[in-house]
Amino acid sequence: MSTLNHKFELATRPVGMPKRSDWKYVEEPVREPSEDELLVRILYVSLDPAMRGWMNEGKSYVPGVGIGEVMRAVALGRVVASKNVKFAVGDHVYGLLSVQEYTLTNGTGLTKVDPALAPLPVYLGTLGMPGMTAYFGLLDIGQPQSSQTVVVSGAAGAVGAVVGQIAKIKGCHVVGVAGGPKKCSYVVNDLGFDAAIDYKTENVRQALQKHCPKGVDVYFDNVGGDILDAVLPELARGARIVLCGAISQYNNTGEIRGPSNYLSLLIHRASMKGMVVFDYANRYREAAREMAGWMAAGRLKSREHIVEGLETFPEALLKLFTGENIGKLILKVADE
Amino acid sequence: MSTLNHKFELATRPVGMPKRSDWKYVEEPVREPSEDELLVRILYVSLDPAMRGWMNEGKSYVPGVGIGEVMRAVALGRVVASKNVKFAVGDHVYGLLSVQEYTLTNGTGLTKVDPALAPLPVYLGTLGMPGMTAYFGLLDIGQPQSSQTVVVSGAAGAVGAVVGQIAKIKGCHVVGVAGGPKKCSYVVNDLGFDAAIDYKTENVRQALQKHCPKGVDVYFDNVGGDILDAVLPELARGARIVLCGAISQYNNTGEIRGPSNYLSLLIHRASMKGMVVFDYANRYREAAREMAGWMAAGRLKSREHIVEGLETFPEALLKLFTGENIGKLILKVADE
Repeated sequence: MSTLNHKFELATRPVGMPKRSDWKYVEEPVREPSEDELLVRILYVSLDPAMRGWMNEGKSYVPGVGIGEVMRAVALGRVVASKNVKFAVGDHVYGLLSVQEYTLTNGTGLTKVDPALAPLPVYLGTLGMPGMTAYFGLLDIGQPQSSQTVVVSGAAGAVGAVVGQIAKIKGCHVVGVAGGPKKCSYVVNDLGFDAAIDYKTENVRQALQKHCPKGVDVYFDNVGGDILDAVLPELARGARIVLCGAISQYNNTGEIRGPSNYLSLLIHRASMKGMVVFDYANRYREAAREMAGWMAAGRLKSREHIVEGLETFPEALLKLFTGENIGKLILKVADE
Repeated sequence: MSTLNHKFELATRPVGMPKRSDWKYVEEPVREPSEDELLVRILYVSLDPAMRGWMNEGKSYVPGVGIGEVMRAVALGRVVASKNVKFAVGDHVYGLLSVQEYTLTNGTGLTKVDPALAPLPVYLGTLGMPGMTAYFGLLDIGQPQSSQTVVVSGAAGAVGAVVGQIAKIKGCHVVGVAGGPKKCSYVVNDLGFDAAIDYKTENVRQALQKHCPKGVDVYFDNVGGDILDAVLPELARGARIVLCGAISQYNNTGEIRGPSNYLSLLIHRASMKGMVVFDYANRYREAAREMAGWMAAGRLKSREHIVEGLETFPEALLKLFTGENIGKLILKVADE
């Protein structure tokens, strides 16, 4: 078998923004599946903010990627060879298949998807981990009530866009925080948010006071930093902050910046709670069914930002942190 | 009527630690009660960390004290004159009676207490607001389960001492954080905590790892700052932080220091929730009854740190922030 795999291994632990030199681009022959294994040809690699955390050493909700190991990522592909009775050649699957062209796996943790029901990239976005994160974070932790005010940061991103749209479906007043006029226009005009705040040009706290006159009942936080601090004093009594991420802090070379307005939680009897989507694995199916229904009804829109070519991975990943992507950032590795 | 009242008015808004010059000591004649009013001779003034916040301008859970207004405080006294049918001369009452010798009031918000059931100062401590704060904060927000690990800061203070003792009654493993060997000995040897950490001489995070090998399930935070940051990485999965106060930050002249390890909430799927005791007013009676039962059974000990003389108020208040008090800090204004 003369097929070659190409992959990105972690070469060094990055300091601040990851550089191309933090990676090693490796070519290797692909071996045939052994008993119970299958070979997946990867089509799309999901690029997610959490990947920055996986590049660090030390304890997080999952262990970091080791030096010399292939970079961990959720990816979607087609089975091209199989000695596993559960998977047939031609099946489409996604899971932690890593940043590479081919993955040999025993199938653990893989999910089959139907390309007839939704375009394949949607399974990495709205019907994948980002969509699940939005769904369970908002509904299970945020618990928004009809006519309450929901604010979401990273509003034009893969998670934020779904959070805001589900909040609208639930009858909430929804305000998105995003960077730049294109993203703000997108969330209001394309996704139907009630308002958007451009954190690059507006005073976020003043804008919140304007758009959330009754205070913020649910804040879904993807970014941390200054925006979290601007929201805290504007909470309504009994507000819930869903702590999903802190993309503004992931490339910090110094100490993480804590929210200096955190005592607003006390004043407003509010809570801040962390969520990790993997905890909801046994409910993914239920969420995907409901979201697919909303998509079919035109109430939930999905948008992907697709970058082509495995070899562009080091630069493509950075778009998450420079804020260049609108919608789910995906690396296309091969044609369907 | 020739009786004179003495009181402390707020003269200027303090910067950092309050100074004597931030107060104005005022003498004035006491007038007789009008229709529906009663006159209370104050015996004990409660000195509480929250008072520092009331001295600031701006929005908190209650409005700040105005310049030229008598300083707000919970106090306990005896009715010495009454034209209010609900209160008789000789009744003992507590409520927001302020830092002074006599208060004329229409009785709103006053609670009668029975000096035969407990010493009067206990009604400002374990059976008063600090005890209620401990009871509802721990049980309602913290929700400790038997054999879980509960950590409390300010462990030798009015709230912390009650938190730890109730947690022991509930079958928890209890670790207190306090400053200095006297306080640490007090919480372990007198109050029955399982361990104490002296934050002045120990590395708090390492000590937590030693005393809380299964992680911290409930952290009751009275202090904020470094100790909150030391606890965050040591949380158990699904931990609850009860945000009760942040005494380490109240005299900050700069920005409040936010918890830089707050993303541990995400890693550990933990929550941090603010509580204000006044929200539980309709359940005070239920809590007082249960706590009085524990006291009578010798399972809940109360300790007061009493300073004598109204005129010492400016300096006595500072003991809270310099950590000099063990137990509930109370200013004695007159003999019973």
